Amino acid sequence: MLIIGERISILAKKMRDAMLSRDPKPIQDRAVAQVEKGADMLDVSIGPADDGGEALMDWVVKTVQEVAHVPLCIDTTNPKAMEAGLKAHNSTFGRPMINSTDGSEERMNTMLPLAARYNADIIALTLSGSGIPATAEDRCGIASEIMSKALEFGLPLENIYLDPLILAINCMQDQAKEGIKAIKLFQEINDPPMKTSVGLSNISNGCPKELREIINRTYLSLLIYEGLTAAIADPTDKALMDVVKTTEMLMGKRLYAHSFLDL
Amino acid sequence: MLIIGERISILAKKMRDAMLSRDPKPIQDRAVAQVEKGADMLDVSIGPADDGGEALMDWVVKTVQEVAHVPLCIDTTNPKAMEAGLKAHNSTFGRPMINSTDGSEERMNTMLPLAARYNADIIALTLSGSGIPATAEDRCGIASEIMSKALEFGLPLENIYLDPLILAINCMQDQAKEGIKAIKLFQEINDPPMKTSVGLSNISNGCPKELREIINRTYLSLLIYEGLTAAIADPTDKALMDVVKTTEMLMGKRLYAHSFLDL
Repeated sequence: MLIIGERISILAKKMRDAMLSRDPKPIQDRAVAQVEKGADMLDVSIGPADDGGEALMDWVVKTVQEVAHVPLCIDTTNPKAMEAGLKAHNSTFGRPMINSTDGSEERMNTMLPLAARYNADIIALTLSGSGIPATAEDRCGIASEIMSKALEFGLPLENIYLDPLILAINCMQDQAKEGIKAIKLFQEINDPPMKTSVGLSNISNGCPKELREIINRTYLSLLIYEGLTAAIADPTDKALMDVVKTTEMLMGKRLYAHSFLDL
Repeated sequence: MLIIGERISILAKKMRDAMLSRDPKPIQDRAVAQVEKGADMLDVSIGPADDGGEALMDWVVKTVQEVAHVPLCIDTTNPKAMEAGLKAHNSTFGRPMINSTDGSEERMNTMLPLAARYNADIIALTLSGSGIPATAEDRCGIASEIMSKALEFGLPLENIYLDPLILAINCMQDQAKEGIKAIKLFQEINDPPMKTSVGLSNISNGCPKELREIINRTYLSLLIYEGLTAAIADPTDKALMDVVKTTEMLMGKRLYAHSFLDL
């Protein structure tokens, strides 16, 4: 299981201020802290970044990789900023990930060619122009469309992480089950199985703070059980990381030792 | 999901002393505490109880039900003590449960007729005279033998809780997965699906104390996901009960509300 650290996001005031003033320290501190706690990759999110997005993403990518020697998940809806991030990315640490395409023509036609050109992985949100599908099966339909399009652009399927788009439990309770089912079904629509990812914290969006962590980690455990490949999540949440390790251990994917939580 | 409180057991020194001196208070305190924390039933275990088992089980059952108005899971390998417990049981709170039979002729021939005669539920450990089966499929084979035998004795299949016999993760790590798979398969060998149960704490037997709770609750979450009906577990472990509620909520079996952990 890959943990993609979620904490470098322009939605967090501290990160926004640092990004806009080009102050590396708060960003680098968060980068290092997440890697120390077990993040395999780091998400760097600058939002739509319509104005100056290219320069900002170039700076953020270089700033983070100066101290965190891991591949990055480059997170923006601005294709020019995305390309700037891919160019700036130091891929000796592993190939970058594009966050994200979805099933709309516009996003596929911009993001999939970038993934092919830069040999990047890409998160593919299984939603289309007409909205969020109601069932796991509908999500598989959109996944197939994205997969076909990727092959047209010369992007191998192994570079794609299918994402069911997790919805908030307090708005759409029945979708939590569909999200897990989608992770299971995504693996069955290709051989070898497709890789999968989720934006974990979405599940508890809008829930009281004291509930968010237990909902996140319980949900992640069920997703891992069904074979999830990657989660964008908070690696500094120790209880979450312990549940990841315990689930992997129970599934036989991590060796039991009395010290397994410390490894 | 039924939680069967595990804390009234002769293996605990405090309980053994109270049982042997017929001191009701320590036992009744534990009974009340477990029901207050959400136990649906209580296990009362007196072990083999070769000497005086009938009188002891009669006393324990009456002592517990005097204060805890729930059905009991009567736990002894002594058939006479089992029958004494069934006779003493106040079934206005629900029908009693026999803990347990297995696939051996001797246990089936004593415990299954008792279950039929007293309209009791019964835990059926899927192990045979020749030991613990290596795979979930082998466990299903033994389950089928027990089910056939139950029908011969006139015991309805809905009274049976199939138990895969959970083994300690630090001895037999690969069996953890087989245990979950057995819970899934047990439901598929009959229509309507067979009920299932586990002795949860077995999974972490021999693990350091600080690991036991996280292993127990993470494992229980995966078992509930696969449809587990009942677990013998510690209802006074709040983190465990919170994970039960959260898993049920994520599966859509419990309504989300900001207060769902307190309900």
